[in-house]
Amino acid sequence: MQDQTSSDQLSPEVRARVQASFDRQGLMGHLGARITHMAPGCVHVTLPSRPEVTQQHGYVHAGATSAIADTAGGYAGFTLFPEDSTVLTVEYKINLLAPAEGDRIEAVGTVVKSGRTLTVCRLEVFGVRDERRTLIATGQQTLMRLDDRPDQ
Amino acid sequence: MQDQTSSDQLSPEVRARVQASFDRQGLMGHLGARITHMAPGCVHVTLPSRPEVTQQHGYVHAGATSAIADTAGGYAGFTLFPEDSTVLTVEYKINLLAPAEGDRIEAVGTVVKSGRTLTVCRLEVFGVRDERRTLIATGQQTLMRLDDRPDQ
Amino acid sequence: MQDQTSSDQLSPEVRARVQASFDRQGLMGHLGARITHMAPGCVHVTLPSRPEVTQQHGYVHAGATSAIADTAGGYAGFTLFPEDSTVLTVEYKINLLAPAEGDRIEAVGTVVKSGRTLTVCRLEVFGVRDERRTLIATGQQTLMRLDDRPDQ
Amino acid sequence: MQDQTSSDQLSPEVRARVQASFDRQGLMGHLGARITHMAPGCVHVTLPSRPEVTQQHGYVHAGATSAIADTAGGYAGFTLFPEDSTVLTVEYKINLLAPAEGDRIEAVGTVVKSGRTLTVCRLEVFGVRDERRTLIATGQQTLMRLDDRPDQ
Repeated sequence: MQDQTSSDQLSPEVRARVQASFDRQGLMGHLGARITHMAPGCVHVTLPSRPEVTQQHGYVHAGATSAIADTAGGYAGFTLFPEDSTVLTVEYKINLLAPAEGDRIEAVGTVVKSGRTLTVCRLEVFGVRDERRTLIATGQQTLMRLDDRPDQ
Repeated sequence: MQDQTSSDQLSPEVRARVQASFDRQGLMGHLGARITHMAPGCVHVTLPSRPEVTQQHGYVHAGATSAIADTAGGYAGFTLFPEDSTVLTVEYKINLLAPAEGDRIEAVGTVVKSGRTLTVCRLEVFGVRDERRTLIATGQQTLMRLDDRPDQ
Repeated sequence: MQDQTSSDQLSPEVRARVQASFDRQGLMGHLGARITHMAPGCVHVTLPSRPEVTQQHGYVHAGATSAIADTAGGYAGFTLFPEDSTVLTVEYKINLLAPAEGDRIEAVGTVVKSGRTLTVCRLEVFGVRDERRTLIATGQQTLMRLDDRPDQ
Repeated sequence: MQDQTSSDQLSPEVRARVQASFDRQGLMGHLGARITHMAPGCVHVTLPSRPEVTQQHGYVHAGATSAIADTAGGYAGFTLFPEDSTVLTVEYKINLLAPAEGDRIEAVGTVVKSGRTLTVCRLEVFGVRDERRTLIATGQQTLMRLDDRPDQ
């Protein structure tokens, strides 16, 4: 999953900033999600399928699918921000295309347009079984860059 | 929180169907969310604030906010469906308006238009502290009604 | 249609600013749309049905419905902005709920949350026939406030 | 603009069905828009810049941008539908990324997922000046296939 080449395009400082922020997200740890790829303007977040993240039919819940999609997009934007910035999700929209099944689901956040204040990302989520990937959700997200003050 | 009067408008059968479906959602139990109101075309889902559902600044994660908003809307539609139906989220869009803080957050899903195949809901999420409610997110959701076959 | 009372809540200066900006929109004049209500945080835009705004089945085109909804929301936000500001639509989402039929359609833009940089509006469009109103579309919009420099 | 090769992948019958439906849309003619590319699951609609389609700063109005984006997506889905079907926009979401300037704007609708009832499209709109293209809007759309009964 890890794409060593493009990950290396990110400075160690930015990689460390992204990972540290992710690690402070109680929800990601509680769900069992982790970052599996980081490159400038693109972050992947992967969530193993397990009973704690299902909806009523046993597939991964749209809420869990959305949570990792939102997170992947947020950090994709964050990789392009200047230091001492923080990222806020303004809004997103997601279409659930197929049942979220597989050994795990993988969210890919990709910056489409990076502005001074606002950044727009494309969100895609894949169900992965034995390395076969199926697109299960697609979305679009607006992020806002804020100055990171200690009290926020 | 519980509005006994309007809850009573739902037949015991429908209430039981909604609750049973909700109880099968591993994610809702894992997050600690529960249904706190049910009426025809309107369902509330409440999530207590705790470290397991936070983002990097300690507020409730947009993914958790969205997860209970999506669930509240889905079951709001479900209350109006004929028996032997199941509900699927086609898509939703959500704006995060304010930091999700409070003792708990409460999502309100309300049916705006109920069609034969598609249902559209309004989603609102409030941060609640000592019974003071602040709107923290607002969204819009499209649901699809499907025949509930045992293998789904 | 005109609600004299609440219109009067807007200062003549703000009313004039909104109307002057609207009048510079070539598209609104070309479609035949006009502002039919202005109050702080709420603007109505009305479009008479005519062959020039139809889709293939003779109803008002979703594009025309969206155009007046976007415009109503944009000016709803604009009524709350300080002088020397301009308004930009960041994004919107709209559900088309019913065929857009009637003598005219009327879009209602209402501010849900007004922030320093971003404003969120609810968009509703009604089909009106002989004063009977039917909700035909519902949406949600994010606006951005910018300083109005002469060269923009 | 016209991509002869991929256009030829569409049968003359489907091309004629799409064009005839487009020609019945009063709004497209009134705006001055036309189809400039058709392939299975992909349709382009182009709109020349002119005073009749502007917003208050002289750029193409977000409503016009959205109208051709919605139309391009709708017909992209339509190219994949069985005969005797009609297409309905359920909803769409669009981000306006940059001022819509250029000699013309071109909307590209592309099917992402084609289902029995619902189809999801990606929408992109470019500003074109002297064949240089700039992405000015990006969106996502849900379509519904209906049986085409004469009375609809």
